[in-house]
Amino acid sequence: MEGVSLDEFARIRHWTERRQSKALLASQGVVLGIGDDAAVVGTPPGESGALEWLLAVDTMVETVHFNDATMAEADVGWKALAANVSDIAAMGGTPRHALVSVSVPKTWEPERVRRLYDGLYACAEHYGVAVVGGDTTSSPLHLVVAVTVTGTVAAGRAVSRAGARPGDAVFVTGAAGMSAAGLHFLLAAAAAGEAAPAVAAQPGGGAASGSPLVAAAAAASAPRPQPVPPAAAEAAGTAALVQAHRRPAPSVRAAALLAARGTVTSLNDVSDGLASEAWEIAEASGVKLALRESRLPKSGSLTAYANRCGVDPLEWILYGGEDYVLLGTIAAGDADAAKAELEAAGLPMYLIGVAEAGPAAVALVRDYNERGQAKQEPLAKRGYNHFGG
Amino acid sequence: MEGVSLDEFARIRHWTERRQSKALLASQGVVLGIGDDAAVVGTPPGESGALEWLLAVDTMVETVHFNDATMAEADVGWKALAANVSDIAAMGGTPRHALVSVSVPKTWEPERVRRLYDGLYACAEHYGVAVVGGDTTSSPLHLVVAVTVTGTVAAGRAVSRAGARPGDAVFVTGAAGMSAAGLHFLLAAAAAGEAAPAVAAQPGGGAASGSPLVAAAAAASAPRPQPVPPAAAEAAGTAALVQAHRRPAPSVRAAALLAARGTVTSLNDVSDGLASEAWEIAEASGVKLALRESRLPKSGSLTAYANRCGVDPLEWILYGGEDYVLLGTIAAGDADAAKAELEAAGLPMYLIGVAEAGPAAVALVRDYNERGQAKQEPLAKRGYNHFGG
Repeated sequence: MEGVSLDEFARIRHWTERRQSKALLASQGVVLGIGDDAAVVGTPPGESGALEWLLAVDTMVETVHFNDATMAEADVGWKALAANVSDIAAMGGTPRHALVSVSVPKTWEPERVRRLYDGLYACAEHYGVAVVGGDTTSSPLHLVVAVTVTGTVAAGRAVSRAGARPGDAVFVTGAAGMSAAGLHFLLAAAAAGEAAPAVAAQPGGGAASGSPLVAAAAAASAPRPQPVPPAAAEAAGTAALVQAHRRPAPSVRAAALLAARGTVTSLNDVSDGLASEAWEIAEASGVKLALRESRLPKSGSLTAYANRCGVDPLEWILYGGEDYVLLGTIAAGDADAAKAELEAAGLPMYLIGVAEAGPAAVALVRDYNERGQAKQEPLAKRGYNHFGG
Repeated sequence: MEGVSLDEFARIRHWTERRQSKALLASQGVVLGIGDDAAVVGTPPGESGALEWLLAVDTMVETVHFNDATMAEADVGWKALAANVSDIAAMGGTPRHALVSVSVPKTWEPERVRRLYDGLYACAEHYGVAVVGGDTTSSPLHLVVAVTVTGTVAAGRAVSRAGARPGDAVFVTGAAGMSAAGLHFLLAAAAAGEAAPAVAAQPGGGAASGSPLVAAAAAASAPRPQPVPPAAAEAAGTAALVQAHRRPAPSVRAAALLAARGTVTSLNDVSDGLASEAWEIAEASGVKLALRESRLPKSGSLTAYANRCGVDPLEWILYGGEDYVLLGTIAAGDADAAKAELEAAGLPMYLIGVAEAGPAAVALVRDYNERGQAKQEPLAKRGYNHFGG
């Protein structure tokens, strides 16, 4: 085997085995962690009632979901786990365990693998997730990271996307669109950085050809694009957007508080865009969701960056993905109390619309048209495409 | 996105959603299957005592673990799940649920994806595993399949690899080396098939350069090698070896019967070769395993094919991998009764050696040397390398 050798796989094992504290593993009911044919987990301590288990898997593929310019190795590790943690939150559950499959390009130095695991374990520590399984394999060319997570929820209390009822309030737990705007900035910065030498070498001018993605997919002997440094994002006022793209922070605490109220009727995390997730709830529940444009949380840095780029911020807010905030519906009578509880805990909650009787649809309500009336626009069902290809 | 389009991903969803019967899903405690953020599973019906959960992940990567010549799509699907089912058996558990991550090359026609899922679901039906999660993504060039499985075991009864004691009997539940011999045949057949036209086109003769692996890794516009047809293996007397490589059958029933006896002290499945798995038990348990050469099960087709190739059959038996039979230790006093129980159920069990006091080591006992005495050879710790690279 080229690149990562068997000895190096032994080193990788050192970066994944016995890495978490016994206290963390015990708190998640881990009887036997990484190192045997399978992990063994029991009921997490402190859980007295009947439990159900939540199971989810999510995959990140180099050149499809990220490339060397948009994400550093540690970001990939963090985000691969965070996306899964978010799926557990989106069922109203508590994340417990993770199993990690990493297929490492043969050209990678082991140090890059270590950084990837550093990011993944940082996310695991942050959310108290016990990493109980791993399979590190070689990959001919591209990095592929597939993470599976477990979570628990009190029996019968998992919140699917199918329970929204007419009259429910629609909420989100944070601003959507940040991640897509961050990706836009990162791709533009990488393209500008790449274009410069190409233009200098061609005095006759002309646009530099090839995107950073194509470059990343090319032969590994070509110089590797470097992740756009945080300082560049800071200077451009886009640090929060870049952070949202590279290190998403799923709404785990908000999910726990909301689920405990027993009044949340549907829940999704925003992985494929607000419009797409709203459509999933609408179709699964057989309701129409009417979202008020004026109520959608808009981050200042998103709006500023969108204006600078001549992009309608709503494009990112509605159709950007990977924000991993929660979108859901809640009994109207409990919406204000839930919002107050979350805000008292320092967590945002925005009431952005209402569920109405079906057929399934999603509409954006613009408060005033030219005649001074509220106006509804149907929202497209289209989802998020990382690189616009 | 090229190749597999969004519409095609919708078709793929049809091949994975609502594919298993409600009865199968219910028998595994599935409350909510594929289609929401996470699956919800409860205690499988009929389980009265306290349970622990087993969790394992295993990955198969094109050109690293298989290529177009060695495995058809359906074989990849079958084997990706079977390898994981075997991990659950190797803990003495019952496989329950699977989550599947498939990264599909952009050049694949959707029909190839369908065949992959056909093989995977055939394996799931065979072992009664409920597929409760999936993430089908695009991949720039190579197929990557990562499968996570859950299983259950009575609390405290999982069999690790660390419990072997001096005096225990060592057993296997089937013949090792079959899969490696099958792979040898498939690579040779593919190379012969490829070499023929190259030689014809070069009247001057000379060996055809390039392995089928390099060909598989080359640009997708090149004609794709076809899996070696079963008829070719039949004619060559290697059908059983090819079947062992492409459609391994993990020892799930044997594991259940053995674990229920309560006398099995360690258990591994043979994924990396008999010698390597024996070393894992020896090191984890702090014992020496002495395996008798004359007791190792040897398949007739393996021996015949090895003789034809001028290969020592022991090379495959000891160092071939992916047989997914079980290797373990059992209290000496219960070994014969366990063997009788398995054989009454139509399942083979071979008593192949004994565990002795440590330090950790693995030895092969050849019954007679030139002086008529038993002779011990230490066995190397090396593991299985698919393509000998």
